[in-house]
Formats: sequence, structure tokens, C-alpha cells
Amino acid sequence: MRHGLSFGGSPVKGESLSSSRPEGGGQSLLRLINSVAVLSALRESSPATLSNLASRTGLSRPTVEAAMDDLVEQGWATEQRAGAEGRVGRPARRYAFRADSGYVLGFDVGAHRVLGVLADLNGRTVHTSETQVDPQLDADSRVAVLRTVAGRCLAGGGVERARLMAVAIGCPGIIAPDGTVTVSTVIPGWVDLPLARRLSRSFACPVLVDNDANLAALAERSHGVARDVDELIYLLIGRRIGAGLILGGNVHRGFGGAAGEIGLLDPPRWERVRELLLGPATTESISDRDHQVTQDLLEGARAGESEALSIVDDFCAVLARHAVAMTLTVDPEMIVIGGGLASAGDLLLPRLREHVDRVCIRPPRLATSTVGEEAVVLGAVQLALRAADESLRHGVATRA
Amino acid sequence: MRHGLSFGGSPVKGESLSSSRPEGGGQSLLRLINSVAVLSALRESSPATLSNLASRTGLSRPTVEAAMDDLVEQGWATEQRAGAEGRVGRPARRYAFRADSGYVLGFDVGAHRVLGVLADLNGRTVHTSETQVDPQLDADSRVAVLRTVAGRCLAGGGVERARLMAVAIGCPGIIAPDGTVTVSTVIPGWVDLPLARRLSRSFACPVLVDNDANLAALAERSHGVARDVDELIYLLIGRRIGAGLILGGNVHRGFGGAAGEIGLLDPPRWERVRELLLGPATTESISDRDHQVTQDLLEGARAGESEALSIVDDFCAVLARHAVAMTLTVDPEMIVIGGGLASAGDLLLPRLREHVDRVCIRPPRLATSTVGEEAVVLGAVQLALRAADESLRHGVATRA
Repeated sequence: MRHGLSFGGSPVKGESLSSSRPEGGGQSLLRLINSVAVLSALRESSPATLSNLASRTGLSRPTVEAAMDDLVEQGWATEQRAGAEGRVGRPARRYAFRADSGYVLGFDVGAHRVLGVLADLNGRTVHTSETQVDPQLDADSRVAVLRTVAGRCLAGGGVERARLMAVAIGCPGIIAPDGTVTVSTVIPGWVDLPLARRLSRSFACPVLVDNDANLAALAERSHGVARDVDELIYLLIGRRIGAGLILGGNVHRGFGGAAGEIGLLDPPRWERVRELLLGPATTESISDRDHQVTQDLLEGARAGESEALSIVDDFCAVLARHAVAMTLTVDPEMIVIGGGLASAGDLLLPRLREHVDRVCIRPPRLATSTVGEEAVVLGAVQLALRAADESLRHGVATRA
Repeated sequence: MRHGLSFGGSPVKGESLSSSRPEGGGQSLLRLINSVAVLSALRESSPATLSNLASRTGLSRPTVEAAMDDLVEQGWATEQRAGAEGRVGRPARRYAFRADSGYVLGFDVGAHRVLGVLADLNGRTVHTSETQVDPQLDADSRVAVLRTVAGRCLAGGGVERARLMAVAIGCPGIIAPDGTVTVSTVIPGWVDLPLARRLSRSFACPVLVDNDANLAALAERSHGVARDVDELIYLLIGRRIGAGLILGGNVHRGFGGAAGEIGLLDPPRWERVRELLLGPATTESISDRDHQVTQDLLEGARAGESEALSIVDDFCAVLARHAVAMTLTVDPEMIVIGGGLASAGDLLLPRLREHVDRVCIRPPRLATSTVGEEAVVLGAVQLALRAADESLRHGVATRA
């Protein structure tokens, strides 16, 4: 179904086609470029008629028709029978993008669990599989669990492994651009693990690894309170404060993957403040959502109990210190507070607002996360979908 | 020489061509796409033979030849007479990008002066003009000075205004995405000035306005110590500390243009520390380079005088606080210290190094600026060149 032949994209990109270009390649190349343009337009607005697509791409109708014939033959699109729409004459041919023409896998690998989601190219969840693990499990065994969860997702969804277009994994720690974990204090044996390379043995498609807060930010932008916010900071509150940054609509990872490690600013009193509010430290970064200590304390603060209020105030002062430093640096449109306190926006946001407004010249909107505990795995699916889109744009010619 | 007709780029971009597409536009469109690809390849590596360009673009040689004929006719390229290169047979035709096929203007508008540079499309300075102004000059008069400086640059370079492809202006303050100054404490009457819109009456090409630190960062990346660094923080030391951020190779301005306003973290003692080292406050953001007080103090510190060392230590502690907050947020590859202390790297960098290494998990490289006092105007030229490149990519069809 898929060939190894790689297609390098538009001619502006350079030399990638020169070696594999067939004789008379000029014409063939242009047909491919047109197919990519038409598929891209169809992906953004499906179903569509030939006229819609011609208008969206600026291509002529016969050119679009030829491209659509190719795309249907290659399995990327399907022709729909048009219903009677009350118009005179032959109904217009309509085409739909086939969301089942490919799949992606997203994972959340934490200390306590490995969660996997199989999704189609529209991001619809096809199958979910979760396995609880011992926080002390060594890295090799944890990778083996990940492989098992992947297999269960594929089997559960009835999808062949060869149809995967991208795999993305979120985990705590700093991930180098090549998908190697360089810093991790949460998962045993995780440091220096070339996770992307290790997993590329199990998958023929691109394998991406990213920091959990980065992916939670991506999920918040796709499904949550920060929908379509292009300049976003997601503050993930766990044992420390970490952040995921979306800048210009994309995850910003920094030179060595260490962007958002704002928790290193945590003042000495942070651990005590955190523990008072969130209960004893765990090794999980997103957790404790319904922890009773926390709920009691938040209720106390809402009821005006002075000790509870003082804890909430102290906690917010630390959060604000981090939010301010990041706001002055990147000027986000919005800051989202994620982790175990998403339900306490009524207490947190006004306090944060006051601190941030006092210092920042252009203060961002503030909100608590609405995505919940599956933020990391849903963000992983989003990251994998972006990689699949990239393949679609550059790789429409790789199917026969 | 130039028509108003706008060309919308690749077919992937969408509908921009549908209204202006001539009959039989499919073929014409493809020819334009090829011209853009060939011009882009020529711009990156000029001069080049048809074979070079065919290899770089992945297009066939006849296609490249047709595109080059168009580009020469339109004035973007010139055919060079090939010298004897010791090879048998007819010498290969070579083409060069015409750097004089367009020009850009860059400006540094400060409290004390307006500096303008006219440059060709290779970024070579063609003419420079500078006018000293009263720091209290009102905004209208200052804009008038800018127009005069622009006229002098064009006259001095013998370049018609119509050949300008982009104009960029750097000034202190926060600049909204539409080129309006929203915050400025340095230039009288500058706040709420729609500078880009005001100047668009004087220029037919795009007019961009940006913060001075952003442009200094861009210059440092083009000409200075941060050459080709894609993740860069440029700390501009003036009355406060401001920063320009390059992320992913581009200036990061943030949602409202307020990225890098890290000076709002300045501790209460900053003004005193700054004044001890840099002398009395001026309203200029980059200045005081050769201020005698500063030089004496730096010499004192180098000679081990304890009072001078203490001032330098205090100053570096404040700088480090800002550098750390920004590093933890965006994880830059390099931080450059610019402003009046570029010659004091021997004193500043080891002290900063110590602070930054103590906190940051992946510490950046540290350096002092090597571009000097023309950083802002040279950065403005770079920004204008980027806009011109964008026009080249999307607008090659606009000449007849």
C-alpha cells in the first residue's frame, strides 16, 4: 500500500527531488504539487465540490478534477453521492477527506501509568488502552509496557500497524530535539534514554517524544479553554511548577528542549506550600485531582477560614512569580493553570490576576484548564496529527 | 515598472489568485510558481548556472531556462558572461541575482537622533544619513525628520522612491502588531502613534515598526556574535533592562508586542546600581559607550578595587536575575549583552556565568554584542530585507 519513495514537496524547497525524479518529471512534479494543494484544501474543509476546491486552490477545475481522481485512487479521499439539494441539473460531485486513510497513536507515559490513544486523521479517538505501572518500574520494562499498550490500541481499533502515520509520546522531563530524555527526576532510568530511536524499531512512521507540559498545552489549545490561542503558557502544577509554551501556534521547546522549566525559580518555601495545599508529594505530575486534603482546604478558603486562605494566598504568590517571569519574557495572550487545581479557579484566578496586573504592562488572560487528566495523551495525539499532516503535505505521492 | 497586480504564491495558499487568474491560468500559474522557485534558488546562491538551478529546484533544465528568461526580462536577474574556466566546449550560461533590483530603508528613531540606512537587496549599505534631534521634539516633528532622512538616503544613493521594497523602523517602546506604539517612556508624544500607518503615506511598499531591542537582536544574528543562532536573547542595557528575542530564527514579539519587557522585574535598587556603573540616566537606550565614569569604574574593577568590584557584582546580580527568568522560560542557545557595556565582557560574563549556571539546567552561551551602536538601524535593514524577500517569494509576477 505504501512505497518508500519520498516526495520532497514544493520546488522552492530545493534538491530533494532531483535524484528520484523520473524522465519527463516536470509534468509529473506539477501534478503532484497540485494533488498536495487539493488534498490540503480538502483536509481543511471536507466535504467539498470541485468548484469549492478550485476556488480554494486557485487551480483550474480540470486540474482539480485530475488531482481528485488521483487522490481517490490513492485512498485519501472518497466521492460522495450528493443528495438532492433543490437545485436544477446534475448534482455537483462532492468529495470527502477519508479520516480513516491513516491513524496516529498518542501516549502519556507517567510514573504510575501508561495511557495510549489510537485516533483517526480527524483526531477522533478510535481506541484507548491504559495500564497501571509500579512507579519504580525500570525504563526497559516501561518501554515494553508502552509497546504492549500500542498493540492493544491497534488490535482494539482493528487497525494494521502499517497504517499508522505518526506516534507521539508525552512524559515528564527534558527531551532533546532528537527525542532523547536528558533530564528526568520522576521516572527511574529515564535519563539518557533515546526513547524516539528505541521506539522507531516498533513503528515505520515518525516517532516523536515531548515533555508532558508541552503536550498538555497543545491539548488545551485543541480541546480546552485556550482554543486557537497562538501565544499560550500552560502552567502545570505538580511537585514543581513546569510550563508548556505555545508560541506562534506551535510548541516552543527551546534550544535543548528545556523551555518552560520555570520550576527552577521555585522559592525555598514552595515544597511546603505545595504540600499544604496538594497533600504529600507523589511522583505523578498530573494527579491528586480529587485529593480530599486539597478539597477540604479549598472549601475552607471559600468559607473564609483564615488559615486556609493564608495557604491559598502563599500558593498563588509563588504561582504568580513564575507567571510574571514568563509573561514579561514572551507576552502570551493567555495563561492556563493545569494540574490538580483546575476546579479552584474561583480562588486562584483573582489572586493571580492581582499579582500579574501589578507588574505586567500587558497582562494576559488567565484561566484554569478544562481538558482534565487526559491532557497529555490528547496533546500527544495532536502532535502526532501535526506530523501526519506534514507527511500528507509532503508525502501524498508515496501511495500507489 | 511595477504593477499593482498581486500574486498570491503557491496554490496551497488558497484563494488569492482566483479573482485575478487569466484564462488558461493553470499553465500561467505554474510558470509563475517555477519563476518563484528559480528566483529563490538564485537568491540563495548567486551566480549560478542553469544546471545549478535545475539541481537546486528539482525542475527540468528547459523549465529553469524559461523561468530565467522571464526573470532577466523583469529585471530580477542578469546573465553573466562566463569566463574561460578551462573546460572544453561552449561556456555555461551563468545568471546573477540583481541586488540592485530593489532597495530597502532601515531607521533607528531614538530620543537624540534619527539614523537612516539605504541598502540593496544583498543588505549592502548604499547611503547613510543621520540627524541629531532635541530629546523633547514632539512626535509630528520627529516623523517629519524621519521623512527628511529618508529623502536624503534616497537622493544620496541615487535611488528612486518607487524602487523601495520595504521600510523598517526601530524605536524604544512597545509596538503593537499593526505598527502602533502602545507604550513609550522615552520619546515625547510617541504613545498611541500609528507610526506604520502614518508612514505608509510616504512609501508605496510595506512599512514595519519594531522595538529597538528586537532589531538589535536581529542585527546581532546577522552581523554579530550570534550569527545564525536561532534561539537568542539580546539583553539591551539602558535605563532599564529590555530584551529582544529571536525564537526559531524569527523575532518573537508576543501577543501585544510586549515580549522581552523583562525590565519590569528590575528590583528597587536597579536604578542606583545602573547609575553607579553607567553614569546619570539619559533618555537614550543605547549610549554612553565611552562614558568616562563607566570606563574608570571598569578599570577600577579590573585593578581589583573593592568598591568598583562591588558595583560590578551588584550590577551582574540584577542582570543575572533577568537572564535566568528568560532562560528558564524559552531555553535560548545564547544570551548577548548589548548596550553600553559591550567592551566589559571580561568582567560581566564570568559573573553572569556563575549566577546562570547555578540555577539553569541547560545554561546558554553568554557573550557581549559585537555589532555596536548601529545595531538598531542594521536590524531594521534586516527586518526590511525579510519583508522584501517575502515580496520576492510572493510577488515575482508583479513586474512587467
